[in-house]
Amino acid sequence: MTDRNMTTKAIVCRDPVDGQRRWELEEVEVPPLRSREILVEMVASGVCHTDLGCGSAPDGTPGFPVPPYPRVLGHEGAGYVRDIGSEVTKVKPGDAVLLSFAFCRNCHNCQHGAPGYCAEFSKLNFTGDADAFRSMSTNSKSIGGAFFGQSSFSQVSRVQETSVVNVTSIIKNKEELKLFAPLGCGIQTGAGTVTELARATSGDTVAVIGLGGVGLAAIMAAALTGCRSIIAIDRVASRLEMAKTLGATHLIDTNCISGSLPNEILKLTEATGTTITIDATGVVPLIEQGIKFTANQGKMILLGVAPMTATLQIPVVEYMVSGKKLLGSMEGGVLPEEYIPQMIQWYHAGKFPVDKLVRFFEVSAFGEAVEEMENGKTIKPILLW
Amino acid sequence: MTDRNMTTKAIVCRDPVDGQRRWELEEVEVPPLRSREILVEMVASGVCHTDLGCGSAPDGTPGFPVPPYPRVLGHEGAGYVRDIGSEVTKVKPGDAVLLSFAFCRNCHNCQHGAPGYCAEFSKLNFTGDADAFRSMSTNSKSIGGAFFGQSSFSQVSRVQETSVVNVTSIIKNKEELKLFAPLGCGIQTGAGTVTELARATSGDTVAVIGLGGVGLAAIMAAALTGCRSIIAIDRVASRLEMAKTLGATHLIDTNCISGSLPNEILKLTEATGTTITIDATGVVPLIEQGIKFTANQGKMILLGVAPMTATLQIPVVEYMVSGKKLLGSMEGGVLPEEYIPQMIQWYHAGKFPVDKLVRFFEVSAFGEAVEEMENGKTIKPILLW
Repeated sequence: MTDRNMTTKAIVCRDPVDGQRRWELEEVEVPPLRSREILVEMVASGVCHTDLGCGSAPDGTPGFPVPPYPRVLGHEGAGYVRDIGSEVTKVKPGDAVLLSFAFCRNCHNCQHGAPGYCAEFSKLNFTGDADAFRSMSTNSKSIGGAFFGQSSFSQVSRVQETSVVNVTSIIKNKEELKLFAPLGCGIQTGAGTVTELARATSGDTVAVIGLGGVGLAAIMAAALTGCRSIIAIDRVASRLEMAKTLGATHLIDTNCISGSLPNEILKLTEATGTTITIDATGVVPLIEQGIKFTANQGKMILLGVAPMTATLQIPVVEYMVSGKKLLGSMEGGVLPEEYIPQMIQWYHAGKFPVDKLVRFFEVSAFGEAVEEMENGKTIKPILLW
Repeated sequence: MTDRNMTTKAIVCRDPVDGQRRWELEEVEVPPLRSREILVEMVASGVCHTDLGCGSAPDGTPGFPVPPYPRVLGHEGAGYVRDIGSEVTKVKPGDAVLLSFAFCRNCHNCQHGAPGYCAEFSKLNFTGDADAFRSMSTNSKSIGGAFFGQSSFSQVSRVQETSVVNVTSIIKNKEELKLFAPLGCGIQTGAGTVTELARATSGDTVAVIGLGGVGLAAIMAAALTGCRSIIAIDRVASRLEMAKTLGATHLIDTNCISGSLPNEILKLTEATGTTITIDATGVVPLIEQGIKFTANQGKMILLGVAPMTATLQIPVVEYMVSGKKLLGSMEGGVLPEEYIPQMIQWYHAGKFPVDKLVRFFEVSAFGEAVEEMENGKTIKPILLW
């Protein structure tokens, strides 16, 4: 374990000028490992909307409390262990790893239930570390990082041990490792919400509102569970087509419905509503419609990141007598060390075609990747180092 | 099965004058049984807040859609079967029965899950039947009834088959039958919310806000489950004392706390919050505080009847990342035919002392019973026929 800074390349994100994102691939220094950190050399990094929009919005609305500018984001990393801190036991140099979120291990939620609801989640994953990297171009000025305990938009990064899942024995080759980069956040969030948080069964009627990577992962999980009906809802025809390919049984294009969305759903569900409704948009009017068309005793699950100031209005009596359940999903409520291997097993069995969702870009083309993600042409870009 | 009207006594509730309740014990006629009805002669009728406040409030706020005035309410009946409709198979004349809510048997919720969320619940339980009885004093004018399929404030009443639970083989004597009258609504709602809806375990930390009959039944159920902590919250010292007798481990008198209620709870729960929070008040600011002090991934359960126009404000992102679950409880989500015998078994085992909650009144003293319920002196009045 070296006690000297090492040099690598990272996508450094500087404060926007005139509302324009300023990302640049530059040389940075990585300070020495701490005792519970792992030095990972990335082969691939998935790009997620949380990397794009988690800071404050151009209109000043505060976002998640991310590391200060300049910073290195990225939270869907895949790579190989290069070095380990003195207390690390989970991996050894050379191991193949997929990266997920960090957690404290000690709080009520880490010890009982799912670490996605860790009491320290925000600090460990969003706020990160203001001095995670040093800038080579500005004479060692600090760069924020440790985003999701990993900041995997750096080719080499210090990663929290809790963020690391060892997949050495279950992946077939390096190409798979690249493909699986997004499993640790977007894909597990969508799929885990269906299979773990909602505990869907073949009797369930599932609606998914919003067909980005997370929503489409939820569709895949509902399909492999054999859910009775899987209703995909979006306003982009190509996304609806993709949902159909992945197993959706009904498609609703919100640009083309004559009545209200709840009425369309009631027509498709013998007037019962959906037993599981997943919102992957964060758009309040859609969430409120989702609550409406969820069946009595059904689950309405919040997954999409709404504006920080967004508020839902719940009529108490109407809600109480319905027996509906309103839940929030963080990372699908899963334990990544168990769930990532599970998803890989499903992929190997041909039941979880993540390859249909991704497009690979050289890391130097990160601008194009982000553009295609924002204009909807690519569902899940993966940057290759 | 007779096809003639029969005469009986009932507490008839007429439209209030100057905001004053007008209930009177009078002779009424009961029309002949329909094919799926059961003629029950009551020995006892529990009184519940829903009998008192379910109509429109004096200020004009609409309440549940109850039968029109004049009407016979009562929905916690206990008695013996006198006659059965042609299609009834569940009981025979002479059987001892406890009465609960009615349901359709056919909808999604009756067939999967709990009939308390029946799609027809409001119609079958609240709206009732505008012509369930006939007034002897006004030349056979119609009187509304079939409240909760039973209108058990009538000594003899036509009861929906679904509302009837046959307890002939499990009660020891007629005195027990009287004591168990309230099991079918208030008590099962409180207890069922803990054991069935929340599926509490010994690891849970439970808070109950509001210690009426329902809240205290929840305390009893948490005690028999052996929950780790049971926090009773009210502003009436005698209710808190009763909660302690029933197994509460911590008492919070909201009149006597120095800080906020959430802070008090955090102090008692190692800063984690309660894993199950039950609101039995319907008071929005208390519900909002309850959501706050519920642990991440914990369950917040709405049980108390709020004003029909009450609205909860839920901050979307804060709620989503907490993993908290907001649930409504109708009748504890139980199937009365299974749960009422279960509660009786607990009572016989000395683990469910419902006798501590009740006070008996001759039916002619219904005014006193209602008064003591409203001023808090009696938790659960039972009228004896």
